[in-house]
Amino acid sequence: MRDSVAGTDAAAVGTDAGPEADRAQAVVWLGGNRFETQSFDLPVLGEGESLVRLRTATVCGSDRHTVRGRRPGACPSILGHEGVGLVEDSRAGLPLGQRVVFSVTSMCGECGNCRRGLSAKCASVAKVGHESTDSGWALSGTYATHIHLPAGVAVVPVPDSVPDAVAATAGCAVATVMAMVEAAGDLKGKRVFVNGLGMLGLTAVAAAQSRGAAEVLAFDPSPRRQDLALFAGASTIMEEETPADVDVALELSGTASGVETCLAGLGTGGTAVLAGSVSPGSNVEITPEQLVRGWRTITGVHNFEPHHLRQAVDFLTADGANMPWDHILGGPIGLSEVAQEFAEPSPGLRTVVTIDG
Amino acid sequence: MRDSVAGTDAAAVGTDAGPEADRAQAVVWLGGNRFETQSFDLPVLGEGESLVRLRTATVCGSDRHTVRGRRPGACPSILGHEGVGLVEDSRAGLPLGQRVVFSVTSMCGECGNCRRGLSAKCASVAKVGHESTDSGWALSGTYATHIHLPAGVAVVPVPDSVPDAVAATAGCAVATVMAMVEAAGDLKGKRVFVNGLGMLGLTAVAAAQSRGAAEVLAFDPSPRRQDLALFAGASTIMEEETPADVDVALELSGTASGVETCLAGLGTGGTAVLAGSVSPGSNVEITPEQLVRGWRTITGVHNFEPHHLRQAVDFLTADGANMPWDHILGGPIGLSEVAQEFAEPSPGLRTVVTIDG
Repeated sequence: MRDSVAGTDAAAVGTDAGPEADRAQAVVWLGGNRFETQSFDLPVLGEGESLVRLRTATVCGSDRHTVRGRRPGACPSILGHEGVGLVEDSRAGLPLGQRVVFSVTSMCGECGNCRRGLSAKCASVAKVGHESTDSGWALSGTYATHIHLPAGVAVVPVPDSVPDAVAATAGCAVATVMAMVEAAGDLKGKRVFVNGLGMLGLTAVAAAQSRGAAEVLAFDPSPRRQDLALFAGASTIMEEETPADVDVALELSGTASGVETCLAGLGTGGTAVLAGSVSPGSNVEITPEQLVRGWRTITGVHNFEPHHLRQAVDFLTADGANMPWDHILGGPIGLSEVAQEFAEPSPGLRTVVTIDG
Repeated sequence: MRDSVAGTDAAAVGTDAGPEADRAQAVVWLGGNRFETQSFDLPVLGEGESLVRLRTATVCGSDRHTVRGRRPGACPSILGHEGVGLVEDSRAGLPLGQRVVFSVTSMCGECGNCRRGLSAKCASVAKVGHESTDSGWALSGTYATHIHLPAGVAVVPVPDSVPDAVAATAGCAVATVMAMVEAAGDLKGKRVFVNGLGMLGLTAVAAAQSRGAAEVLAFDPSPRRQDLALFAGASTIMEEETPADVDVALELSGTASGVETCLAGLGTGGTAVLAGSVSPGSNVEITPEQLVRGWRTITGVHNFEPHHLRQAVDFLTADGANMPWDHILGGPIGLSEVAQEFAEPSPGLRTVVTIDG
C-alpha cells in the first residue's frame, strides 16, 4: 500500500523548506513519551489520493497503548487515526471543502482478503496513524494539520448536524462497533450484554438499543462508566455476577475475565463478539461440548470494512447523536498539548484535539 | 412434545394383545448391553401425527455411546434415530405409501427457541430414538417395524433413486453436516479442513466439494478412513501436522486435540464449526487476541433444523450419491441382530439394519 502513496518526500521533513502556510504541522512521536512538532511538505497527490485539512482528532486508547509500549508502533510517526476534516485537494473525485471522516486501514483491493471483503486484513495493509514518517506515507496520522489519504482508505462525508468531535470517533471506535454488531447478527428483540464501558462499550450499548435489542445489560467496574451506560441506553447495570442466558455478548474490556464472563453468560444459540482483546493477554478455556450442544458462537472483530464507516456516520447522525457526548468527550486540547495528554490523560473517555492549523 | 403423541398405550406392551400383523415389533434397550424384542399396539394417531412402516435403519455412533454409558439415555426405550420407511397412516396429510425420512427432534413450534429458528433446542423437545417406552411415545425409535411421528417431527419424502440404506443416514448424520456447512458460510473457492473421517466427516468432505470448495484437506488417524476420504472427494490427506491458513475447519472427531487442531489451522477470517464434541471432554484453551486480530470464529452445531433435512435428501439425490457407500455402509443385519451389533460392531462406518417387519 505504501507504494500507492506518491509524493510525500521524507527528505523534506524540517522547517526550512518554504512558507509555513504551504506546509503541514504535525506532532511526531519519537518513542516513549517523547513527541516533537515538525513541519512537512504537503504531498503531491497520486491518482485516487486526497489531502484533508484536519479540524479535530480524538485520542483512541490504542495510541495510549502504543506510547506505553504495550504494542509495537512505527517510530518516528504521526499517531492518531480518528479525525475529521475538510477535503483540501483530491485526485479521488472528492468535492473540495467536503467534511469527511476516513477509515483506519488502507487496502490494495486486489489481494485475497480484499477480494473476499476482509480489506481490514489486506495483505499489504497500511494504517492511518501507524506509519513511519520515513515510510513514504509521512502524513498518515491525525495529530497534524493535514492527512494524506491513499486511494485505499475509505472516505465518508459527514452531515452538518454531527459535531466535529463526535464525527471524529466514527473512524475507529464507532465503525468497529458497527462491525461487531454486524457479526452479532440481528439484534431485534435480543438480550444483549456489553462488557467494558469505555468509548466502544458505550457506543455498543447505544447501538444495541438502536438496533432494537429488547434488553441491554452492561458491566464495567467503574461507577462513573456505569452511569454513562444508563444514559447511553442500558437497561440494567450488572453487579458482580455473570449475566445468564444472553443472546449476544459484546466484549470490549479486553481482559481474559471479560471474555470468560461473556462466554459463561451465553444462552442457547448465543454469540459472543470479542473486540477488546487486541493486546497479548491470558488464554481462556472453552468447553467444546457447551459450544456444540448450545449452538454457541465466539467470533472476533478487529477494525472494520468501508461499509461499517458509512454505518458509523449514519448512526452518529441518528440515534448516536443522543449518546452522553458531554461526558464521553474530554478536552478539548490543542496539538501542542498532545505530548502532555499522553503523559497525563484528560478526564473523559475520548480526548478531543482541536486543530487550528 | 410427549403430550402431542396420542394413543400409544404403554400398558399394552407385550405379545398377547392381538394378531402380530396389527402390532409393531421393536428391539427395546433395557440398559447396558441388554435388549429385548417386544411388541406394541399400533398407535391411534393424533392430529398432525403419522405412522411410518420402517424399511431400514442405520446405527448412529451416538446410540453406541448411549449403550456404553457414555451419555445418558431413557431406558427402557427403542433406540435408533436414522431410518426410512413408508407412510402407513397419517393425520398430517402425508400420502400413504410415500417413502420418507424424518428429523431427530420434535418441536413444539411455539417456544422462544422454535420461534427464532432453533427448533432443535425446543424448550419441550422430544427426540426420535430417545424416549422411554412408558413416556407416552413408545414407538419413538427406528430399531422397530414402525415409528410413530409426532406433529413436531419434520418429514421429508425421498426420491426413488436414493437407496434405503443411503436415505436412512439423512435423518441424523447428513442433516447435521448440512447444518455445519450452513454455519460455515459460503464454501465456494474456500480451503476447507475436515477433522475426523467417520460417517459425518466423510459426508462433510463430499458436501464441501459439492458446495464448491477449492480444496478439501482431511485428517483421521485411520488409514482406511483416509482412503475413503479420498474417494469422497478430499484433495489432500493431512499427515500429523496441523493444516495452515484454512478458511473453514469442520470438527467431527469430538476430541479436544481435534478442536485444537482446527483452531490452530484457521487463517484470517476463518471459521471452525464444531459438531463432534457431544460428550463431556477436556477443555480447550483459546487466545482471545488471535480470534480478535484474525476475525476468527468458533461455532457449535448440534442436530439440525427441518430445512437441513430437506438439504440432506437433496444432497443424497445429487452429489452425495457418489460417496463410497459400499465402504461406508456395514451389514446389513436384521432387527434380531441389533443386540449383537452393539456388543460387536460390524465393519463399516454405518451399520444398516434391514427391517422385514
